Amino acid sequence: MWVCGAVFRLRALAGPRKGLCPASGCRGPAAASYSASADPPRVRALVYGHHGDPAKVVELKNMELAAVGGSDVHVKMLAAPINPSDINMIQGNYGLLPELPAVGGNEGVGQVIAVGSNVTGVKPGDWVIPANPGLGTWRTEAVFSEEALIEVPSDIPLQSAATLGVNPCTAYRMLMDFEQLQPGDSVIQNASNSGVGQAVIQIAAALGLKTINVVRDRPDIQKLTDRLKNLGAEHVVTEEGLRKPEMKNIFKAIPQPRLALNCVGGKSSTELLRQLAPGGTMVTYGGMAKQPIIASVSLIIFKDLKLRGFWLSQWKKDHSLDQFRELLLTLCDFIHRGQLTAPACSEVPLQDYQRALEASMKPFVSSKQILTM
Amino acid sequence: MWVCGAVFRLRALAGPRKGLCPASGCRGPAAASYSASADPPRVRALVYGHHGDPAKVVELKNMELAAVGGSDVHVKMLAAPINPSDINMIQGNYGLLPELPAVGGNEGVGQVIAVGSNVTGVKPGDWVIPANPGLGTWRTEAVFSEEALIEVPSDIPLQSAATLGVNPCTAYRMLMDFEQLQPGDSVIQNASNSGVGQAVIQIAAALGLKTINVVRDRPDIQKLTDRLKNLGAEHVVTEEGLRKPEMKNIFKAIPQPRLALNCVGGKSSTELLRQLAPGGTMVTYGGMAKQPIIASVSLIIFKDLKLRGFWLSQWKKDHSLDQFRELLLTLCDFIHRGQLTAPACSEVPLQDYQRALEASMKPFVSSKQILTM
Repeated sequence: MWVCGAVFRLRALAGPRKGLCPASGCRGPAAASYSASADPPRVRALVYGHHGDPAKVVELKNMELAAVGGSDVHVKMLAAPINPSDINMIQGNYGLLPELPAVGGNEGVGQVIAVGSNVTGVKPGDWVIPANPGLGTWRTEAVFSEEALIEVPSDIPLQSAATLGVNPCTAYRMLMDFEQLQPGDSVIQNASNSGVGQAVIQIAAALGLKTINVVRDRPDIQKLTDRLKNLGAEHVVTEEGLRKPEMKNIFKAIPQPRLALNCVGGKSSTELLRQLAPGGTMVTYGGMAKQPIIASVSLIIFKDLKLRGFWLSQWKKDHSLDQFRELLLTLCDFIHRGQLTAPACSEVPLQDYQRALEASMKPFVSSKQILTM
Repeated sequence: MWVCGAVFRLRALAGPRKGLCPASGCRGPAAASYSASADPPRVRALVYGHHGDPAKVVELKNMELAAVGGSDVHVKMLAAPINPSDINMIQGNYGLLPELPAVGGNEGVGQVIAVGSNVTGVKPGDWVIPANPGLGTWRTEAVFSEEALIEVPSDIPLQSAATLGVNPCTAYRMLMDFEQLQPGDSVIQNASNSGVGQAVIQIAAALGLKTINVVRDRPDIQKLTDRLKNLGAEHVVTEEGLRKPEMKNIFKAIPQPRLALNCVGGKSSTELLRQLAPGGTMVTYGGMAKQPIIASVSLIIFKDLKLRGFWLSQWKKDHSLDQFRELLLTLCDFIHRGQLTAPACSEVPLQDYQRALEASMKPFVSSKQILTM
């Protein structure tokens, strides 16, 4: 998800990264190095040396692989998405920024090839995803410390595994942690076609919640509406439609929402608040409009509306790895039951990353770019 | 406190009002009536028949007094303040609006003259204040139902009793109900010279909390600063000063606030949020700037800031009369210990109400107008 404004520098990465050796910080004697023309090339990675336009600063480089230490895991990456937060991190506009140079990508799924002698949690053949952001997933292979990885079932679709660790987790936690919702209750969200938005629609439907999904108007709005309704959306309205009195008709059939999920900010957030039931909560997890939240004083006072924020990285800091694992397994249950699918994806081979980066930054993107290795 | 924007019509008044008979709704055979020239005049009251500029729509009228029914209390009003919320209610810009015509004023203290045969809670000589807004306190005498009144100790200063039921209650609840503060913690607020603001300074100081008090710049700023510091303010800064880097110096001596109290909105609210410690809460209870709250998306997400609202009327709906009585007694303890005084007041006889109304609506009012009967 995209987030504007102030940036907090990453204090500690998820775990030591051994696949890429940045300017400093590699441990042990077998540190790797990267070069534009290693011979023979063993690992390829999308690397950026400074923040800026991803199309300009990201380069495909050959790297040497670090030796596998006792607590390390050698992983062959299978697929890794390009998320808005990856783009923002490269641009330098994100709450976590890695030391440079860095390998791009914070999500993805890999298969374990080999493990160090002290590794007990995973074995060759297992599928793993990053336990935290900052790992650098846009590469063919890497050696990570065991604690930087978390196992996922290998019987779920590859695209689901590659996109499991951020957006569906964010969607589920926002639905569960702010209001005590019951089946039949409603939820309103904007940016409903985003990765989080699509996960919200599906998970909410699986929980018996009715979603009101706000999207930007566009030429193929009916196609988008149909697609979101196929996912389980109860209502799909445009930002403009949200401001029309006809919205009241929706609430003849379903209750006013006690939860609003805001990834846009600006006017869109003002309108989401207007739709909330008294005592309801708006949770902000992104600011795609690059504008602040604008909230009516009288609604906050007289309707007791609450404004909160959600950031999965903070949730993970505040919870144990076992709790994160439990969250992932809950989501895999939805996947196994056919209730949660990956967002519409376009798989692009790693070497065609320029095309994938450009496609991911176009407005009205309806297809997530997934790099395959 | 002043509140802009949407208005919710009062569903039920605090209790039947017998002193003034509006267009309908009086019970019993002894309903009162009002006229511009009753003969002989027994009761005088400040009445408005429609919403508008208080200086134009409020009139001093003579009224007849209702008979005292079994559950009624005959009260001689002693003193009643002119609060911003009274002005907004007359203007029609408030969350509760009485049926018209109505007697102005929502706060004040009166002395019981006589009680009906079923009244057990108060006796002649007792001091009483309204249990809820909407009672109409700007009058010399009235007959109220017992349930519309609440007793207060008669050994506190008259001005304290007349201003006890709204602002200090709001200040105390906001300090207690949103963040678990400990002695040494800090609180930041704007509109610090308001009735609530002055109560916040004093109650916070009594609780060992350090207040950072934001005020609008003005010619006599040093005089105001001295006055607020005499009340217990730790720091007094102007709105402009709040935006200067020197603010950081304050936080070398005291911790960043986990609680911000916002009665202004607009840019002032944006700045209050910037000063909050991670995880902190901004509670909005007014919107003097007549502008919405503008909140940085990244602060809400990455610093987990929370935005809430507080409205004493809602708190009272959600709590019992005994809980309100307990709150008043807690505040009276502060008063008895010399830790809570009434805001600077100017006492004005009821017949000079025009002067008092005008003074209460001037910018930079540093003295609360109190009507005496």
